[in-house]
Amino acid sequence: MRDKRIAFVTSNEHKFREVKVILEEYGIEVEHSQLAIVEIQAMRIEEIASAKAKSAYEILRRGVIVEDDALAIDALNGFPGPYSSYVFKTIGNEGILRLMHNIKDRSASFISVIAYCSSSSSDGEPLIFVGKVDGIIAESIRGNGWGYDPIFIPKGSSRTYAEMGDDEKNRVSHRRLALERFARWLKER
Amino acid sequence: MRDKRIAFVTSNEHKFREVKVILEEYGIEVEHSQLAIVEIQAMRIEEIASAKAKSAYEILRRGVIVEDDALAIDALNGFPGPYSSYVFKTIGNEGILRLMHNIKDRSASFISVIAYCSSSSSDGEPLIFVGKVDGIIAESIRGNGWGYDPIFIPKGSSRTYAEMGDDEKNRVSHRRLALERFARWLKER
Repeated sequence: MRDKRIAFVTSNEHKFREVKVILEEYGIEVEHSQLAIVEIQAMRIEEIASAKAKSAYEILRRGVIVEDDALAIDALNGFPGPYSSYVFKTIGNEGILRLMHNIKDRSASFISVIAYCSSSSSDGEPLIFVGKVDGIIAESIRGNGWGYDPIFIPKGSSRTYAEMGDDEKNRVSHRRLALERFARWLKER
Repeated sequence: MRDKRIAFVTSNEHKFREVKVILEEYGIEVEHSQLAIVEIQAMRIEEIASAKAKSAYEILRRGVIVEDDALAIDALNGFPGPYSSYVFKTIGNEGILRLMHNIKDRSASFISVIAYCSSSSSDGEPLIFVGKVDGIIAESIRGNGWGYDPIFIPKGSSRTYAEMGDDEKNRVSHRRLALERFARWLKER
């Protein structure tokens, strides 16, 4: 057996101790390395959208946009945040309402990120346009809409995105704000 | 303005319609591209651990392991799954118990993935060793332990990982199973 000393890269002390104890039984020495490796999981949605736009441009070779959005609930420390899409698919709006049961501070924000890549992005780096709308989480699922629309009430409204209907939602949404910034930039350059 | 026709890469039809309607107001034509780009968010923990081990090896240039684990709850469609760490940091065990309130099927599994990379990995690809333990989610937080240990009861036990104490946990845990596989392989080659 070669390599009987190995480095275990982790920022979690508990994990390090567990691994060390177990591997010692097998005569394997473990050293703790706190090397900061990129936490792919911790990527912000800007980076996710940017990486996707880049890959898409490399294949399509034409102007391309990718959009990602994230709902961040203050009382839940920003959850579901960058994993909004996965969280929606697993626990859905009902799960969010369960988590928010009896919680008074219902403030949240919805952000949309557009990443644009085209032949004129000289350095190959996508451009990012962000739109953000503050609001609150409704007490129940209201209206027929997709995603988190039935539980998000934008500031200044008494209705959820889903209760608004497409036209009204599209006038005030986080996605509208991001697209507006993108469109203005595209027209002016 | 060049590029007034752009491709919007998304698998979400709702999103496509919203974006199309808004950008048309600005004279920008949007075409729907269903190009399958890698969903970085949807990476399984095997891939995450593997990518991290590879980066770590490139810097350290010595035998290195990285470990990731994931709790998957059946009644929540596998949530928190690959995002177990982020979910723990935001909603924690209390959040999980809220989501599981009044849910009868409490079955879950805990998996540990070890990715190992060293100078002898001829193709530079990390080797992966997996350990999995089935169990159930407790009705309340029990015992002092880190992570999800206070709410996970492995099959065959009446106690949570956290109630077991380190020695007993380390004899039966998902991490033990993965490490055992890794250690046996390392000693035998």
